[in-house]
Amino acid sequence: MKKISLLGATGSVGVQTDNVVRHHPEHFQIVALAFGENVDKGLELIHTHRPKLVSVKNKETADKLKGQLASPVKVVYGLEGLIEVAAYPEADVTVNAVLGSIGLEPTLAAIAAGKIIALANKETLVTAGHLVMAAAKEKHVPILPVDSEHSAIFQSLNGEKQSQIKRLILTASGGSFRDKTRDELHNVTIEEALNHPNWSMGAKITIDSATMMNKGLEVIEAHWLFDVPYEKIDVLIHKESIVHSLVEYIDNSVIAELGHSDMRLPIQYALTYPDRLELTDTKQLNLWEVGQLHFQKVDMERYRSVKFAYDAGRAGGTMPTVLNAANEEAVAAFLKGAVTFLDIEGLVLQALEKHHTIQHPTLETIRMVDKEIRRAVQEAIRQR
Amino acid sequence: MKKISLLGATGSVGVQTDNVVRHHPEHFQIVALAFGENVDKGLELIHTHRPKLVSVKNKETADKLKGQLASPVKVVYGLEGLIEVAAYPEADVTVNAVLGSIGLEPTLAAIAAGKIIALANKETLVTAGHLVMAAAKEKHVPILPVDSEHSAIFQSLNGEKQSQIKRLILTASGGSFRDKTRDELHNVTIEEALNHPNWSMGAKITIDSATMMNKGLEVIEAHWLFDVPYEKIDVLIHKESIVHSLVEYIDNSVIAELGHSDMRLPIQYALTYPDRLELTDTKQLNLWEVGQLHFQKVDMERYRSVKFAYDAGRAGGTMPTVLNAANEEAVAAFLKGAVTFLDIEGLVLQALEKHHTIQHPTLETIRMVDKEIRRAVQEAIRQR
Repeated sequence: MKKISLLGATGSVGVQTDNVVRHHPEHFQIVALAFGENVDKGLELIHTHRPKLVSVKNKETADKLKGQLASPVKVVYGLEGLIEVAAYPEADVTVNAVLGSIGLEPTLAAIAAGKIIALANKETLVTAGHLVMAAAKEKHVPILPVDSEHSAIFQSLNGEKQSQIKRLILTASGGSFRDKTRDELHNVTIEEALNHPNWSMGAKITIDSATMMNKGLEVIEAHWLFDVPYEKIDVLIHKESIVHSLVEYIDNSVIAELGHSDMRLPIQYALTYPDRLELTDTKQLNLWEVGQLHFQKVDMERYRSVKFAYDAGRAGGTMPTVLNAANEEAVAAFLKGAVTFLDIEGLVLQALEKHHTIQHPTLETIRMVDKEIRRAVQEAIRQR
Repeated sequence: MKKISLLGATGSVGVQTDNVVRHHPEHFQIVALAFGENVDKGLELIHTHRPKLVSVKNKETADKLKGQLASPVKVVYGLEGLIEVAAYPEADVTVNAVLGSIGLEPTLAAIAAGKIIALANKETLVTAGHLVMAAAKEKHVPILPVDSEHSAIFQSLNGEKQSQIKRLILTASGGSFRDKTRDELHNVTIEEALNHPNWSMGAKITIDSATMMNKGLEVIEAHWLFDVPYEKIDVLIHKESIVHSLVEYIDNSVIAELGHSDMRLPIQYALTYPDRLELTDTKQLNLWEVGQLHFQKVDMERYRSVKFAYDAGRAGGTMPTVLNAANEEAVAAFLKGAVTFLDIEGLVLQALEKHHTIQHPTLETIRMVDKEIRRAVQEAIRQR
């Protein structure tokens, strides 16, 4: 029985983690969970899993939740609450599916408490990969990926030696606008950007997918997770999203993981690794039904965010923190209608160009830079 | 340093094994080799590798070879000679790349001598899989596949549990006639059949590829190699031959091995497993250069040999021996111009239909059935 602490329980990955756990009650149990403000969904999860500790966004939500709880559960809130759930003593695994760089400190707390980390919060690694991986190494804690691309790489590396990797190849659907030229991006709407061709996810990641910043963040994440230099990480557009990613070895043999898209697979694999369990109600992949798979090179001029991410990753230090913070703010502004789609790239580029990299930043420095950049991006938006 | 005994040294796989060994003299050494009658090529290999033992097809060839040897090498011949090379005491690995069911007894001898078996001779497993696998199990000897499909499965199984396999999926190029209907097969010529769209191999395997009996034999081979029942083995037409084969697991995750076709890869992997070494002068796979991959269901009415193989495999006992012996004779007759392309299937079907399966056959029974079937097929050809 694996005991799970789940952060981001009412989000897309959280809900699918709930599904995986409910299908395998003999293997998994959620003992602590954290969510934001969705009290209705939160109550449902509490009712199903009967966790012993729950954290929510703020005191107000905590009070509201307490008023509606049928049985006594410890309720905490804020970043402190999130950290308490992340490091909950009874848990074996911490599934971190919160959104944005707020996931960093809970991850570090869970590592310090010796938990296995199932990581869906890619911003954790983008913003402070060096701190997270060093802490995990020191505590001998595995960081298991919970997104389809990194899980595919992780599965393709199973049984192989890290030293024999020649290249990691992340596939990208190309997002909502993959068939549009750069010129056609000037007047796209929020609704169009949110209409992902292959699947339904949260708003922020769907926009990141449209700009392909999501792939850029994944490149940085892959760098840290698998300890592979940027020149050995490639991105490939594959519109069917059947090949989830690939690993090339020194003998030019390529191992890939394929399947119909189902976020529950990487979640469950992170929980069952190195074993597998049946995944209920999932679609079997018959390639003759798919018929054709298409692959295309990524044009770095068309998808500038990918280039920004490579550049920021290579610059290292605080530069990926800047990339991530600027992007989070710019995407939030786009979703509020405050800036255009192409402004997202413009704002990120501006932040990157103005920043002087600080190498080997401490957690304190990262926090400070993250705040500063968010402020600067907000200011730049106001001045438009 | 791995010391190698190489059977079938002047054939297609033998020559590529020579290439692999020459590129990694610090890792591999050929200490014994066997070939048929190609004395010129054989002398070249002897000169390069300086083996201590050489076997050839018959006494005549042995005498001819001895007359041309610069330095003293022990030369033996016939099946006995082949067995002596297979079990050569100094060798760690026996690479069995002979053609046809004649490879069976050398394989058994190598297993009895405790050698690691790198098996390119699929007829060994088709004709007597139960004996070979039982012997290997008893002696704790690994049987490592040396053809691209089984190597792909073997690589895709690395790090995974056999009990968690849901399905093995062998890919097939479709052979020389994949774009022809069944009706169009009536008048095809030997030259057309030998013109494989994706690669150059020996004549027998190229014809087997055109009838897709090759894939049928591979299904039986996979059954034995990976201990998977026939209902969990599928075949998929994939004309680009980039995806070499796939394994589906119980969670519907599919792991595949991909690459440009290069027989040296599975040969080298069998020699380096569980490690990998650089493969010299091989083409890196960039999927954006390939652009598209196509997949298609196998029509068992169009490719009847595949159905014959599944049926023979399921019937078990001596039935796969019959399938293989009848096919070897029919293909030989086709290559001599004695029968038509579609006669190959007809002759195999006739042999299968007439045979009463003997379950759990001994080596003696297999030898006897093999001989009888060859005689019967030859007789059937004469009576046409």
